[in-house]
Amino acid sequence: MSRCYTITKEPISIEKTVGLVSRPEAGAINTFIGTVREITEGKRTLFLEYQAYQSMAEAKLAEIGEEISAKWPNTKTAIVHRVGRLDIEDIAVVIAVSTPHRADSYEASRYAIERIKEIVPIWKKEHWEDGEEWIGDQKETKAYSAGKPEKEDFS
Amino acid sequence: MSRCYTITKEPISIEKTVGLVSRPEAGAINTFIGTVREITEGKRTLFLEYQAYQSMAEAKLAEIGEEISAKWPNTKTAIVHRVGRLDIEDIAVVIAVSTPHRADSYEASRYAIERIKEIVPIWKKEHWEDGEEWIGDQKETKAYSAGKPEKEDFS
Repeated sequence: MSRCYTITKEPISIEKTVGLVSRPEAGAINTFIGTVREITEGKRTLFLEYQAYQSMAEAKLAEIGEEISAKWPNTKTAIVHRVGRLDIEDIAVVIAVSTPHRADSYEASRYAIERIKEIVPIWKKEHWEDGEEWIGDQKETKAYSAGKPEKEDFS
Repeated sequence: MSRCYTITKEPISIEKTVGLVSRPEAGAINTFIGTVREITEGKRTLFLEYQAYQSMAEAKLAEIGEEISAKWPNTKTAIVHRVGRLDIEDIAVVIAVSTPHRADSYEASRYAIERIKEIVPIWKKEHWEDGEEWIGDQKETKAYSAGKPEKEDFS
C-alpha cells in the first residue's frame, strides 16, 4: 500500500496513479491534478520549488487515505506529490480515489486535497518575475507559517 | 475544439484527455473516470456494450462544455466517451476540467457527468452472468427509456 502515498522527484504519471486504485468493484475514479499556475493575483510565476519532509509527508498522505476509508467505505486512494523544481503546467500532485458510486469519489477526492493542505509537511518556493519567496497564497495556511515557509496551495 | 468532445471505439488515454485542458492559467484539473464495475446490486457483469449516435452525442458533449463555460468562467473541458465492447475495469468515459482554482474544477466536473447522463444519446447493454439487457441502473434515466434502451450510468 505504501506506493499509494508517495513523494517523488520524478514527473507524475496520471495513468499509473489511477492504476493504483482501479479495481473491479469500482465504477468511479475521481482524480485531482494540481498544476503550476503561471499567474496568481496578477503576479507571474517563473517556476516553483517544492520541498518535503519525505518520510513524514508520506506517512501523512497515508493517514489521509485512512481517514477517507473511515469516512467513505469501500474507497481506494492514491496520492503522489512531486518535489523539486516544477515549471508552469507541470503536475505537482495527483490524487486518485476509486469508489463503487460516483458521488463518493468526488467528495473523498475533495477531502483529500483539503487535508493535504492542512497536515502534510510540503512547502513551495515561488520564483516570481521580480524575486522569490517561500509562500502559500491561502489564508488557511497562514497558521502554519510561524517562522517557516508557508504550506502549499492549489487554490 | 471538437477533439475535446469525442466518441471513440479506442481505449481512452487519461493523459491525452488531461492534456487537452492543461494550460498555464489553470492550477487545478479535475478528472472523472467512469469504469466498468463488476457487481451491481449483487449481479455480476461479464462485459458491457456501449452504443451512441456519434454525431449527436459529440454535439451534446460540446453543449455540456459550453454550459460549463457559462456557469464557471475560465474553464476548459474535455469529454471522451468510448463505445463498443468494454470489459470489467475498462474506462468508459473521461471528463477533464481545468480551472484556475480547485473548487470550480470539482463542481464543473460533477456537473458534466450528471449532464452526460441526462442529455447525451449513449446507451449500454449489460451482459450479465445469466443473460443480457439494455439497461441503465438509475431511476433518473428511466424517463428516457420509453421503447428504447435506457441511458448509461456511472452511479
